[in-house]
Amino acid sequence: MISIDDVLSGFLDEELGKVSIIFKKQLECEHDLINQICGHIDSYRGKMLRPSLVLLSALASGAEEMTEAHRVTAAVVEMIHMATLVHDDILDEADTRRGGRTVNEIHGNEMAVMLGDYLISNAFHLCSSLKMPDVNLLLGSTTNTLCKGELIQLGNRKILDVDEDVYFTIIRKKTASLIGASCRLGSSITTDDDEMTLRLERFGIASGIAFQITDDLLDLIGEKDVVGKSVGRDIEKGKMTLPLIYALNDCSGSDHDDIVEMIKSRNIDSLREIVNGTGAIERTLDKAMALVDDAKSELRDIPDSPAKSMLIALADGIIERKY
Amino acid sequence: MISIDDVLSGFLDEELGKVSIIFKKQLECEHDLINQICGHIDSYRGKMLRPSLVLLSALASGAEEMTEAHRVTAAVVEMIHMATLVHDDILDEADTRRGGRTVNEIHGNEMAVMLGDYLISNAFHLCSSLKMPDVNLLLGSTTNTLCKGELIQLGNRKILDVDEDVYFTIIRKKTASLIGASCRLGSSITTDDDEMTLRLERFGIASGIAFQITDDLLDLIGEKDVVGKSVGRDIEKGKMTLPLIYALNDCSGSDHDDIVEMIKSRNIDSLREIVNGTGAIERTLDKAMALVDDAKSELRDIPDSPAKSMLIALADGIIERKY
Repeated sequence: MISIDDVLSGFLDEELGKVSIIFKKQLECEHDLINQICGHIDSYRGKMLRPSLVLLSALASGAEEMTEAHRVTAAVVEMIHMATLVHDDILDEADTRRGGRTVNEIHGNEMAVMLGDYLISNAFHLCSSLKMPDVNLLLGSTTNTLCKGELIQLGNRKILDVDEDVYFTIIRKKTASLIGASCRLGSSITTDDDEMTLRLERFGIASGIAFQITDDLLDLIGEKDVVGKSVGRDIEKGKMTLPLIYALNDCSGSDHDDIVEMIKSRNIDSLREIVNGTGAIERTLDKAMALVDDAKSELRDIPDSPAKSMLIALADGIIERKY
Repeated sequence: MISIDDVLSGFLDEELGKVSIIFKKQLECEHDLINQICGHIDSYRGKMLRPSLVLLSALASGAEEMTEAHRVTAAVVEMIHMATLVHDDILDEADTRRGGRTVNEIHGNEMAVMLGDYLISNAFHLCSSLKMPDVNLLLGSTTNTLCKGELIQLGNRKILDVDEDVYFTIIRKKTASLIGASCRLGSSITTDDDEMTLRLERFGIASGIAFQITDDLLDLIGEKDVVGKSVGRDIEKGKMTLPLIYALNDCSGSDHDDIVEMIKSRNIDSLREIVNGTGAIERTLDKAMALVDDAKSELRDIPDSPAKSMLIALADGIIERKY
């Protein structure tokens, strides 16, 4: 028997296929060299979380079918996301991404800078092709926020007493803003019901914050082979993440000094062990779970639908993710 | 007695002042750290060539006064240009720009990557605020072209037998496209006369190619103190420029081998001397002059005006530039 979930999954897969075609077509170019480098990006594309959120938010907002505007917007947010991955890998000096080598590792930082720029530029160009000024304006404001998050994070590198507030400001801006915008755009293209659109945006923002928390947790406690990308990079690059902030807050005396010393000396294995002992991992997971609950409660007043159920399942999945 | 030129110069200075205010206001942010880093960009802003071209093209197309759309567009093209400077300096590992230290030199490559992204994002956001979809679309297509030029240039690094065609493809895309777009946008915002707009765009493209040729020439024969930025970087980064291409084409036997050896060993002083002896410098300048003539001839059928005279003067200035 085919369940409603299976029907929706099949529908989503088919639509994401169309989104991928728009994505690839936008980057196609008369120069083989550029096509080759862009081809590498394909291997980065994993879960297509952001395009899925555009499409599901549209459905949850009452869309009966997907229009070209939905698909183009889905391709645009994925392209912005790919650009941030390419530039993030330079910032992080990462050599592995989704199990494969990064652009900076293969072609050098210079090519990675320009490829990221090419993706950002194409995302805006593709978005402009919709001739929907409000979509363009929201995209620009979202990427402004995203960049601010990255800049604040860079400015706080190697500062060990980063507090929780700064951490949340950073991840809300650098990660949750684009996830929230994906939900908002899917909805606003579909309906004039601003309240509905706002609820979906808030769902996306809370989910996005939870998502980044678990991402940061995986960098500390995950295994490279399972996560599919370099781990321990946050500590090596002097980025303070929530489990470390909690561990430092909860400890005093020699334990506190030990953690500071291990962070400074990038002694990741010992750090994992000591942080594990403080209960900071559980506290971090609790925080992520509370945010997932917040996210889901935003959807309470939205009419039930298979798409809404899938959004809830996606939010729940954040807690169980291993990669 | 005040001449028409003085009146136009005064008018332009005043308008460029307004453009600068829009530029700064767009980047203003609630985070001091980001304001500080953006403040550094001020020192990069020199001649404001691209905003001037937007405004002058508008005037030459019949605008009687500048509108907010003209000024915003002028700020947008300047912001894109600033972003390319910040990212170019990473690519070139340059430490000096307009006589000051580069962002990558002071804050590191990572901050420079993100600052460039922030500028690109803000340029698109500011452009979107106009709610003129055609302007957005042209901007996106121009930055796509610009990035393609940079990617092709990177792909051709350290390839000594780059031919003239590839060189011109690169500089037309990476430099002339934005200069051409500046002229085109200034005109298209002002008039529906597509022929006029096309002429101004072609004026910008030919001038832009000439401009990049003289820029490349200055990297070979200029003095750092006069040019205000690092010189000899093209050769150090394996970029083949027109004087080197001409010198290699014109020489055979041991002279040819000597030049190849000097390029490979980055022996800039000897290279300057030998290239000077081949007549390649003169040939390069002749090519730039021919392009400036092409540019000016595009304006032949545009009604005479002080703005048109100033555009012609700007084109002539390309040949005489020392920085």
